[in-house]
Amino acid sequence: MKTNRRDFIKTLAVGTALAGIGGISNMCTSKPKITKMSNNNKAVLNISFQESTAPQKELNAKLDYMEKLGVTGLEPGGANLTNRINEFQQALRNRNIKISAICAGFGGWLLADDPAVKEECIRTSKEILAAAGELGSVGMILAPAFNYQKSFPHTLETRERLADDLRMLGEFAYQHNTSLILEPLNRREAFYLRQLADAASICRDVNSPGIACMGDFWHMTFEETSDHGAFISGGDYLKHVHIASRKRRSMPGEDGDADNYIDGFKGLKALNYPGYISFECGSKGDKAVTIPAAVKLIREQWEMA
Amino acid sequence: MKTNRRDFIKTLAVGTALAGIGGISNMCTSKPKITKMSNNNKAVLNISFQESTAPQKELNAKLDYMEKLGVTGLEPGGANLTNRINEFQQALRNRNIKISAICAGFGGWLLADDPAVKEECIRTSKEILAAAGELGSVGMILAPAFNYQKSFPHTLETRERLADDLRMLGEFAYQHNTSLILEPLNRREAFYLRQLADAASICRDVNSPGIACMGDFWHMTFEETSDHGAFISGGDYLKHVHIASRKRRSMPGEDGDADNYIDGFKGLKALNYPGYISFECGSKGDKAVTIPAAVKLIREQWEMA
Repeated sequence: MKTNRRDFIKTLAVGTALAGIGGISNMCTSKPKITKMSNNNKAVLNISFQESTAPQKELNAKLDYMEKLGVTGLEPGGANLTNRINEFQQALRNRNIKISAICAGFGGWLLADDPAVKEECIRTSKEILAAAGELGSVGMILAPAFNYQKSFPHTLETRERLADDLRMLGEFAYQHNTSLILEPLNRREAFYLRQLADAASICRDVNSPGIACMGDFWHMTFEETSDHGAFISGGDYLKHVHIASRKRRSMPGEDGDADNYIDGFKGLKALNYPGYISFECGSKGDKAVTIPAAVKLIREQWEMA
Repeated sequence: MKTNRRDFIKTLAVGTALAGIGGISNMCTSKPKITKMSNNNKAVLNISFQESTAPQKELNAKLDYMEKLGVTGLEPGGANLTNRINEFQQALRNRNIKISAICAGFGGWLLADDPAVKEECIRTSKEILAAAGELGSVGMILAPAFNYQKSFPHTLETRERLADDLRMLGEFAYQHNTSLILEPLNRREAFYLRQLADAASICRDVNSPGIACMGDFWHMTFEETSDHGAFISGGDYLKHVHIASRKRRSMPGEDGDADNYIDGFKGLKALNYPGYISFECGSKGDKAVTIPAAVKLIREQWEMA
């Protein structure tokens, strides 16, 4: 739309001028990407648990339990990861479980208007990314800022500043054979980044092989109108997925009929999504019951998708 | 993700408390919507022109030309529409052309921090919506604010205020058998609303049968990573589509290989999209050549989708 022809022409002229002087350097004007679609459903379901998901206390006991369930990914937190590299490498030896993603764990936040806070985020993120690379992880998960973290206002300038910082971190991650994974959260936690399409659009602007995005079914419940559309928009940038029940963030299935992931799974299958679907949730029930039931539910819905 | 467990629990507790006191009234927590997908490709291609698209001067000459091309929709501007109802009704009598959408034409803007400016937007939008209803139009197109229009900051509070205003306008539109159609624009024109998924999410929050959204291939070129994903996210809220060439906003085809709409058309077909695809573009060439070529290109790509 245009409010009137004069505004329209003025806007186009400004856009053209900006393009000429590099003012839209963060704005991709290349040929639109054709979504890689597939109907042959070759995508494999790879289930991952966070370290706190399995009820056992010791890491090896957790991994034994996960193996029995056919869970093939482990998602540790990023805090203190550098000091735990050897521990994870030893524990995963001769197992059919790999490190999936690394869940946050950095200090500060990237959108901070306080330079020291942003630098703390960058410094600690680099430490975790280096460890993530050594562990063969797909990447470290990052949300640019939570609502309670004082940040720059939500403007185009902030978006461009963020893209520049992410490009630097993405290049660092790529050098370490891993990636930085942007996670959209629901508006009550982080209004700044709420949707897969926006996260993917940031990835396109950043244009680094070390930048990626993810979707979390819990947050998507409140922010996406279509799980399917959201994942398709994630496209090749989509490197990780979180799952939980859709009303209380418990084990999938604990919220009954609300826990329907089929529409999203169809999107993942259409993308031939190669990554993990990782549990990020607690349980209101007995984990000895709710965890196997959740794994079964996800497998059934994956088949139905 | 969560920065740490304490933050996580705190955030959940706040969310639960807000839900309890109705603080997330604009946030739908119902069962996730299953995208209505179709593989039978029954969707019909309905092409529409804006009033300025056809090169003729007189409305009836334009309509004669459009009929010869098989164009079945006309998208007038909203300015002065009330005084032109009879003119359009007479001109469209005994033709296979209907009014598609009404392109803006209102005064003020909805996100204005100046109450008088917002009221002007509401007052004039209602006038146009009433006329749109009389003309059988699918709806009036509105962008909440352009970048140059001084507005409230991009926060959750602004989003909720916008949803309230849109709900009121949506109900008005529905009473007049039409709708208010949110249009995402590219960031250089309107950073506030840039993506289909966000527009559809606003529609879901508004929750009125008189609110809808649209996609414009021109803006989508710069803002969406996947035309297909974007339209799927639009879902049932998607009521209108604009098209132009993808580099210079000229007639589709004037920008060569860049003018590929197949991925988006696949999304529209999957939705059984019932609306129009309406030209909003100029031409760098001879319209007598570029317009028929554009119509032909769109028809060919629709078949290929």
